[in-house]
Amino acid sequence: MKKVVSIRRKALAASEEHASLLRARFAEAGTLVLNMISSPGSGKTTLLETTVGRMAESYKMAVIEGDVATERDADRIRAMGVPAHQVLTSGACHLDARQIETALETTDLMPAEVLFIENVGNLICPTTYDLGEDFKVALLSVTEGDDKPIKYPAIFSRADITVITKSDLLPYVPFDLDTVKNHIASLNPNGVILVVSSTTGEGIDLWCDLIASRYEAKQPS
Amino acid sequence: MKKVVSIRRKALAASEEHASLLRARFAEAGTLVLNMISSPGSGKTTLLETTVGRMAESYKMAVIEGDVATERDADRIRAMGVPAHQVLTSGACHLDARQIETALETTDLMPAEVLFIENVGNLICPTTYDLGEDFKVALLSVTEGDDKPIKYPAIFSRADITVITKSDLLPYVPFDLDTVKNHIASLNPNGVILVVSSTTGEGIDLWCDLIASRYEAKQPS
Repeated sequence: MKKVVSIRRKALAASEEHASLLRARFAEAGTLVLNMISSPGSGKTTLLETTVGRMAESYKMAVIEGDVATERDADRIRAMGVPAHQVLTSGACHLDARQIETALETTDLMPAEVLFIENVGNLICPTTYDLGEDFKVALLSVTEGDDKPIKYPAIFSRADITVITKSDLLPYVPFDLDTVKNHIASLNPNGVILVVSSTTGEGIDLWCDLIASRYEAKQPS
Repeated sequence: MKKVVSIRRKALAASEEHASLLRARFAEAGTLVLNMISSPGSGKTTLLETTVGRMAESYKMAVIEGDVATERDADRIRAMGVPAHQVLTSGACHLDARQIETALETTDLMPAEVLFIENVGNLICPTTYDLGEDFKVALLSVTEGDDKPIKYPAIFSRADITVITKSDLLPYVPFDLDTVKNHIASLNPNGVILVVSSTTGEGIDLWCDLIASRYEAKQPS
C-alpha cells in the first residue's frame, strides 16, 4: 500500500510540473483559464453555453471538455461557434495537466483570451489536479441538497468561485441558500459565491463581469 | 506509468478477493446486499430513509454509509431507528471491500436481512469496486439531465437496477424519460428501471416489492 501511495505521489508531482509549464504559458499569452468542477449534471456545459453566448463576441474564447465518454459537450460548445476540444479520459475520473498540454498541441484552441476547462463530472477526484488554471470554479446545483459543501469540503475550500446553479428550481426543492453560503464561506473565507440560473438569466451578468474583470487583471499593464 | 497500472491491478485483485469472502459470508447469512451508487445529491440517503421507513418493521435492515466527510448520512438513518455505520474514506472517491469487512467486524450491523451500502457520491470510481453485494443500484435524478447514461456508461451497464429519482421535478426540467430508458436498456438489456419520488411516493411500492422479492429469492429453499 505504501508503494502505491509513493508512486501516486510521484505521478502527482510530475503532473504538477506540467501544470507549472502550462501556467507559465498561459501567463505569457495573457490567457485567463478557469477549471470548472462539479458533480455530473450540475449544469457546467449549460453555463458555458450561456457564457460564450454572451461573451464570445467580445473575447476570443475556447473550451476543453473532459468526459469519460462521448463528444456531446464539445459538440454543444461548437454549435455556439466557439472552438472546443473533447478529451476522453478512458474511464479516468479527472483531467490532468498532460492531457491539457496535448489538447493545446494538437488543436487551434490557442491563442485564446479566455479558456474554460470543463473537468469530468466528479466532485472529488479533479480537486487535487492542477491544470495550470488561474482558479477553480465549483458548481453546485440547488437540486443536489444543501449539505454538499460540508460533505465534500475539499473542492469548496479550494475553488475561488462557487456558482450555485439552477436557482430557478429553488421553489421546488429543500435547499437553504443561507446555510450553504455560510458553509462555503467558513471553508473558504476569501471565495466568491454567485447564484445563477441559465434558464432565467439570474446572476449571469455578475458571472460574466467577474470573468471580464479577472481577464483584465491578468493583462500586463 | 506501466508500474502504476500494474500496482493498481494488484490492489484491485486483492480487493476482489476480499469481496469474494464477503459474498460468501452474506450468502451463508442469507443477507441481501445492495450497493447504491450515484452522483452526489441524487437522493440515495433520502431513498434509504423512505425505504427503511416502509420496510424496517418487516425486515431486519442495516446501512453502511460511505462519505469523504461527516457522519450526516449515518445520523439520518439512525434517526429512523435503523443501525447505520459511517465509513469515512479520508478523501478516497469510493468504498472498497476491506472497509466493508472492517465495518462488519467493529459493529453490530450483522446479522441483517437486508444491508444497504451507500457508496461515496461519485458516478465513476465506485463502479469497478466489488463490495460483495448481490447487485449494484444506480440512481439518477431527473435534474441531472437525460444525457448521463451515455456519458457515464460503465455504471449504467453494470447496475442491475437503475432508479430514476426526483420524478416530482419532471415538470420543471428538460429530461426525456423515454430517451433515458432507451439508453439504459441499450447499455443493459436485462436491467430493471424504476421511476420514483420520495416526495410523492411514486414508484416506492415497486422498489420495496423488488427488494422483498430479491430477498426471498436469496433464502435457502
